Amino acid sequence: RHGETEAEDLVGMVSGLAWTEVGGEILTIESVLLPGKGQVKATGKLGEVMQESVSAAVSYVRSRAQSFGIKPTVFEKRDIHVHVPEGATPKDGPSAGVAMATSIVSVMTGIPIRRDVAMTGEITLRGRVLEIGGLKEKLLAAMRAGITTVFIPKDNEKDLAEIPANVKDALKIIPVAHVDQVLASALVRPPEAIEWDEEDDVPATRHGDNLTNQLPH
Amino acid sequence: RHGETEAEDLVGMVSGLAWTEVGGEILTIESVLLPGKGQVKATGKLGEVMQESVSAAVSYVRSRAQSFGIKPTVFEKRDIHVHVPEGATPKDGPSAGVAMATSIVSVMTGIPIRRDVAMTGEITLRGRVLEIGGLKEKLLAAMRAGITTVFIPKDNEKDLAEIPANVKDALKIIPVAHVDQVLASALVRPPEAIEWDEEDDVPATRHGDNLTNQLPH
Amino acid sequence: RHGETEAEDLVGMVSGLAWTEVGGEILTIESVLLPGKGQVKATGKLGEVMQESVSAAVSYVRSRAQSFGIKPTVFEKRDIHVHVPEGATPKDGPSAGVAMATSIVSVMTGIPIRRDVAMTGEITLRGRVLEIGGLKEKLLAAMRAGITTVFIPKDNEKDLAEIPANVKDALKIIPVAHVDQVLASALVRPPEAIEWDEEDDVPATRHGDNLTNQLPH
Amino acid sequence: RHGETEAEDLVGMVSGLAWTEVGGEILTIESVLLPGKGQVKATGKLGEVMQESVSAAVSYVRSRAQSFGIKPTVFEKRDIHVHVPEGATPKDGPSAGVAMATSIVSVMTGIPIRRDVAMTGEITLRGRVLEIGGLKEKLLAAMRAGITTVFIPKDNEKDLAEIPANVKDALKIIPVAHVDQVLASALVRPPEAIEWDEEDDVPATRHGDNLTNQLPH
Amino acid sequence: RHGETEAEDLVGMVSGLAWTEVGGEILTIESVLLPGKGQVKATGKLGEVMQESVSAAVSYVRSRAQSFGIKPTVFEKRDIHVHVPEGATPKDGPSAGVAMATSIVSVMTGIPIRRDVAMTGEITLRGRVLEIGGLKEKLLAAMRAGITTVFIPKDNEKDLAEIPANVKDALKIIPVAHVDQVLASALVRPPEAIEWDEEDDVPATRHGDNLTNQLPH
Amino acid sequence: RHGETEAEDLVGMVSGLAWTEVGGEILTIESVLLPGKGQVKATGKLGEVMQESVSAAVSYVRSRAQSFGIKPTVFEKRDIHVHVPEGATPKDGPSAGVAMATSIVSVMTGIPIRRDVAMTGEITLRGRVLEIGGLKEKLLAAMRAGITTVFIPKDNEKDLAEIPANVKDALKIIPVAHVDQVLASALVRPPEAIEWDEEDDVPATRHGDNLTNQLPH
Ligand SMILES: [Ca+2]
Ligand SMILES: [Ca+2]
Ligand SMILES: [Ca+2]
Ligand SMILES: [Ca+2]
Ligand SMILES: [Ca+2]
Ligand SMILES: [Ca+2]
Ligand SMILES: [Ca+2]
Ligand SMILES: [Ca+2]
Ligand SMILES: [Ca+2]
Ligand SMILES: [Ca+2]
Ligand SMILES: [Ca+2]
Ligand SMILES: [Ca+2]
Repeated sequence: RHGETEAEDLVGMVSGLAWTEVGGEILTIESVLLPGKGQVKATGKLGEVMQESVSAAVSYVRSRAQSFGIKPTVFEKRDIHVHVPEGATPKDGPSAGVAMATSIVSVMTGIPIRRDVAMTGEITLRGRVLEIGGLKEKLLAAMRAGITTVFIPKDNEKDLAEIPANVKDALKIIPVAHVDQVLASALVRPPEAIEWDEEDDVPATRHGDNLTNQLPH
Repeated sequence: RHGETEAEDLVGMVSGLAWTEVGGEILTIESVLLPGKGQVKATGKLGEVMQESVSAAVSYVRSRAQSFGIKPTVFEKRDIHVHVPEGATPKDGPSAGVAMATSIVSVMTGIPIRRDVAMTGEITLRGRVLEIGGLKEKLLAAMRAGITTVFIPKDNEKDLAEIPANVKDALKIIPVAHVDQVLASALVRPPEAIEWDEEDDVPATRHGDNLTNQLPH
Repeated sequence: RHGETEAEDLVGMVSGLAWTEVGGEILTIESVLLPGKGQVKATGKLGEVMQESVSAAVSYVRSRAQSFGIKPTVFEKRDIHVHVPEGATPKDGPSAGVAMATSIVSVMTGIPIRRDVAMTGEITLRGRVLEIGGLKEKLLAAMRAGITTVFIPKDNEKDLAEIPANVKDALKIIPVAHVDQVLASALVRPPEAIEWDEEDDVPATRHGDNLTNQLPH
Repeated sequence: RHGETEAEDLVGMVSGLAWTEVGGEILTIESVLLPGKGQVKATGKLGEVMQESVSAAVSYVRSRAQSFGIKPTVFEKRDIHVHVPEGATPKDGPSAGVAMATSIVSVMTGIPIRRDVAMTGEITLRGRVLEIGGLKEKLLAAMRAGITTVFIPKDNEKDLAEIPANVKDALKIIPVAHVDQVLASALVRPPEAIEWDEEDDVPATRHGDNLTNQLPH
Repeated sequence: RHGETEAEDLVGMVSGLAWTEVGGEILTIESVLLPGKGQVKATGKLGEVMQESVSAAVSYVRSRAQSFGIKPTVFEKRDIHVHVPEGATPKDGPSAGVAMATSIVSVMTGIPIRRDVAMTGEITLRGRVLEIGGLKEKLLAAMRAGITTVFIPKDNEKDLAEIPANVKDALKIIPVAHVDQVLASALVRPPEAIEWDEEDDVPATRHGDNLTNQLPH
Repeated sequence: RHGETEAEDLVGMVSGLAWTEVGGEILTIESVLLPGKGQVKATGKLGEVMQESVSAAVSYVRSRAQSFGIKPTVFEKRDIHVHVPEGATPKDGPSAGVAMATSIVSVMTGIPIRRDVAMTGEITLRGRVLEIGGLKEKLLAAMRAGITTVFIPKDNEKDLAEIPANVKDALKIIPVAHVDQVLASALVRPPEAIEWDEEDDVPATRHGDNLTNQLPH
């Protein structure tokens, strides 16, 4: 809409699965980059735990920036605003952490996120994906929203036994132990590492060969 | 008044529709630019959700500055103060987000806002317009205030069935999915994009041809 | 006193009319300029709404600085401290906004405020004067304090019917819709606009001819 | 003590009279200058009103710095710490304002404060001294502490009728309307004005002739 | 995983033993370095005491940086983020201090932490290890988690009498009085001191001879 | 321990006597210097009064830096972290002020504190030592901890009558009116003044002759 391709429209925008006051629910998570100095703003009536979840996601992405093709210096010139509409609904808990990280990598690389995926999982500073609660309700919410693929924490695989067959038929459920597994599949193309030499602040040769289409635009 | 034309008087000033302690009500929203460094101040006894709504509106406008004819560098030299009189009345909720964005685009472009329009709708970081509550009361307040045109969220179209016929007769009600649809009609002339080259910090050729009358003064 | 003329003594000092815990009352409002960077401090046990009122008054004055003969650059080199004695009495409400703006224009231009005037009215970012409550009690307090002229909001004209005749005889009551109407009369001489060219930061020719006596000293 | 003359020991140290939880009481107020940038720190379990009182006192002294022989630029290179022992006793109210100002002028000029004086009175941004409560209890506390001279607000003269004769015999009670009257008598020598030319940042000739002994050391 | 060796994966990641709402528990503590200015962020729903524990650990490491082979200047160019998953579980108390210090030394030296160790103990600014509570529950948690070696405070040796024999058989329990004893054993190789000359900001010769493999990478 | 001499171990570490939830108690107080800009951090679950006590101690030391042989410029290049283990025990009150000042002078001069001394007393901005409560309980705690010398406020001499004879036999009790009396005895050697010329920022000749052994190392 408004001169954007559909793909561009989904840069930085991702479906998380979380608990709110009304149960399992799809949360759209949006990020934008703004001129700035590496500040992070998180809005949408987020509780302390979800705020810290944004913080952990940002630190993970920032500490591994080169491995996603992000110049580390971009953090000195940009602020990140992460917003979770609907702004009047209180939201909390760590289970949107993986979605936060995915949104941030997307907006910083310019690589769109697939529209039909959703994800749930706590994230750690090293990108590990930790167990969450309420898996069944979250999967039902994903199914109702027309999602086709859901990433869940490896440590929640044990809970799949209690998920109804029709949900497991409707959704491709992918257990993951690390957020990089999500990034490799949920983005329309995988991010690719750049080399970075801190001293001269100039990006060196890339590991991959598809240099042009991974540049943010 | 006081040496201003009527049009100038309405730069940055817009009618939002929101809930306050006394029900559906017209809220005048005012913005001014001040010398500064991109800080945003929001006053008028605003609750946390309405404060975050200002924040989302500013981030949307800032991240798309060029598409509205705003030089991105203006944010480094100006602060924005958004105020919602009447200062003693507590106000909250996300439904003034679209009006916040309209006020900010107006004050940053110098393009006046049409006096006879009002608007309601939550805004996201990408300018999407989300559903609000209390549509009927808000439309009644708009009618009482002599408004002729009201922008509402596309997702509230379903609520129009319960709106009395005399209200629908008195008001032109325009459902919108994106705030750019509001900006295209609520401002006395549509904002026009500029090209911007971050490296040399000099505005390039514009897409449109009516360059002179869209400059802020 | 102490080497100041009476006129100098009243620079930045003005009588507002407001509600406190003990009813309608005259509030003296004082401002001083200090070396600084445009910070605003407001003291005197002021509630949130009165604090925001100071903020709106400052933004109005700052955004129209040239029209009052104030060099915009003065805000980069001065802080403003607004204080409302008596410091132990809690004060709140927006009705001192017009008085705040008058005090600030006075201290920044060096033009004294007339001793015999008082004023009440909420101020907006564009200098509009909005309706206040408790008009009768405020006018009685002004009369008791020996005030001869009171500025009230235009929107409170309707309340004059219930004001006792002796009060209306004792006071010249002037309804105003915009704070500039107050500034034109309450200061011992009206502020006069300067032209200002942001690029070279040098004040240009003034609109008026009484250049010398309007300069702060 | 410890290599200081008695006079030096009293630079910045003054006896205020205030209310605490245990009634009228002498409060010793101490100030020191530290290398810094004009920050003000106030400690001693001070309530909000007493904190604001420090703030008003500093703004008064700062806005009239030259008239006390203080180079305005000293505020850019020094912080002020005002402390009110005994640190475990909660203290509040505006009545120590005059004493705060006296302590600050003393520490910034290096002129000692007379040991045998005490003072009470709210201070405004322009140095006016406002009425306080509990005069009788405060004078009794002063007498018990061996004070010989007490400055009180002019507006409290009316309360002297109810003060016991023995108190009025023991104390020289001096009503004042402005803090400069206190400074002229409570310091061991009156501060003297300097001229100051903001552009060249160099102190010009002084009004007085005793230039040497008024310099801080 | 994802191109990291197992050793690398454990840089900055350590098992602490602490009390949470559900009793003695293993807490994984993670740290990362980010470009920055020496700021410290601590997340994971940490109470005030655990926040201060991070602060003490950082000050200890920073004040002895050279003795661990850390260039003091690295603190001017890096922020430290310490996170304790699981983010929804409130955590408090000082007993994770030794683990915090170990995590920070590991991430700043690049030396991995042994996977099979855990530790408990309050840390002081000088690295002393102080007594903790709940030793038995913590050791049981360590045993359940497959830990083989546990560092405990010297002052808790007296509590070993009440620890069941099977726990003491399963775990190597090492009482320590100073955190440097932990660092010497829990890291896969001991950190080695560098000499540092503050004036020229250039690292001098090292005390050890295994210079290459102790460098962070 | 760990390459430190016993003397070094006690630089910045001192025994205070204070009240905690469990009565009179020895509090170890530790300080370290860190690269920084004169910021002061105080941790250890300290209440507001004890926090302000740290602040008063730092201001006293900073305002008399030269008299202790401390270059004033060191405050521009160092932060001070004062910590009071045991971190889980709430602590409050002003009576550790003298110990705070002693710890800070020690860490800034590098002069160790004698192991066998303890001290109690509120400190003011000018180093005066004020009366404290609970003297008997504090002396008992000192005796139990093996302390041999205790500094107490001169104003508490009156309380010595009620102290049991065995306590007075076991402890050398030294009443002091000023913190400099404590510093002269509690440090292993007295601090010695330096001359300092603010303009050239270079330390001048010292008053003493033992220049070398008083330098921090
Ligand atoms: Ca929803
Ligand atoms: Ca959760
Ligand atoms: Ca209204
Ligand atoms: Ca709403
Ligand atoms: Ca009054
Ligand atoms: Ca009011
Ligand atoms: Ca007392
Ligand atoms: Ca009082
Ligand atoms: Ca667990
Ligand atoms: Ca513990
Ligand atoms: Ca203890
Ligand atoms: Ca105490």
